[in-house]
Amino acid sequence: MFITFEGIEGCGKSTQITLLADALQQAGQRVLLTREPGGCPIANQIRSVLLDAANTALVPMAELMLYAAARAQHLAEVIRPTLSDGAIVLCDRFSDATRAYQSFGRGLDRQTIETLNDLACNGISPDLTLLLDCPVEVGLGRARQRIESTSGPREERFELESLAFHQRVRDGYLQLAAEEPDRFVTVDATGQPDQVARAISDALLPRLVVPA
Amino acid sequence: MFITFEGIEGCGKSTQITLLADALQQAGQRVLLTREPGGCPIANQIRSVLLDAANTALVPMAELMLYAAARAQHLAEVIRPTLSDGAIVLCDRFSDATRAYQSFGRGLDRQTIETLNDLACNGISPDLTLLLDCPVEVGLGRARQRIESTSGPREERFELESLAFHQRVRDGYLQLAAEEPDRFVTVDATGQPDQVARAISDALLPRLVVPA
Repeated sequence: MFITFEGIEGCGKSTQITLLADALQQAGQRVLLTREPGGCPIANQIRSVLLDAANTALVPMAELMLYAAARAQHLAEVIRPTLSDGAIVLCDRFSDATRAYQSFGRGLDRQTIETLNDLACNGISPDLTLLLDCPVEVGLGRARQRIESTSGPREERFELESLAFHQRVRDGYLQLAAEEPDRFVTVDATGQPDQVARAISDALLPRLVVPA
Repeated sequence: MFITFEGIEGCGKSTQITLLADALQQAGQRVLLTREPGGCPIANQIRSVLLDAANTALVPMAELMLYAAARAQHLAEVIRPTLSDGAIVLCDRFSDATRAYQSFGRGLDRQTIETLNDLACNGISPDLTLLLDCPVEVGLGRARQRIESTSGPREERFELESLAFHQRVRDGYLQLAAEEPDRFVTVDATGQPDQVARAISDALLPRLVVPA
């Protein structure tokens, strides 16, 4: 089973995906927790190009292609073998992030995004996508606190975008969820972490298949 | 005018493109000499991912997308503005390298290559492509000498490929030249540098347009 977590900066994806991974592992499931862009050494090198706040000159088409390259590598090297092995893959961001950020956010045409996603994904798509939805003011407030309190590399190229950009991304995510109601579950991410975690469990339980 | 230099490793592109740039500048032309992958800071970051000999796990689709990303950035940031400004652009490798290495060399289907090239190039294509052709044994012999005598980063991921790979690349280049005889000029690159330079000048002269 391939489950992706999506949402704007500061929506709580990273916290929630870790809570879900722990819960599934405690229930005896084999789980791989990974993220995009990244998830393997080459994709992490691409991540550092994509998120470096100094790379303000990066044009939207190159950005799109870098995400697609990182995804193709991550799928081939990590996601596909893990799914084939029967484990659950939890991925923090995936192809919907490219739709939301590069199409709705940057304004690249949707068909180009789909072409690149199709080439990168080569037939793999999430079984379930959890969209953690919250107002942009809430998400960006949390994201900026996090950036100020960490000492690692400053991966804040997106946090530095305008409020209007993030609003387009949020609206885009909600539209994607409306386009594919069977795959998406939208969770209110404004509450406390334990409330959000419960909403995610409630969404997931009816989807888990008990082997015959 | 946009002129690209193509050929297998060790064919002498870098030497010849520098000689041509010098000759054109001495003739009073404004010339930009650049290369792919690279040509600007972000594309150089992508170059280091592509050519790092440690990145043996890089899958062909991700490799293709990284080349396309570097090209989109290089075109937007450097090549297109320079051409608009009326200067001559000389580029060491361009979209034909992607056709030769990723399609003929790696076996990716040609239509996928063309889709990525089209998205990256956004309507720009070389006016003239100089293919420096030599047997793979000659080219690889020179390339390995060069690697052993340099102390910089080891950009040798392609030099480490098999002889059969480089043979497919050479054959691919010759096929591309046959497909577009108006754009390509194939130059015998086995001779001494001054002989090759003369062959290049002879090919270029009838293409240079004297302003009315």
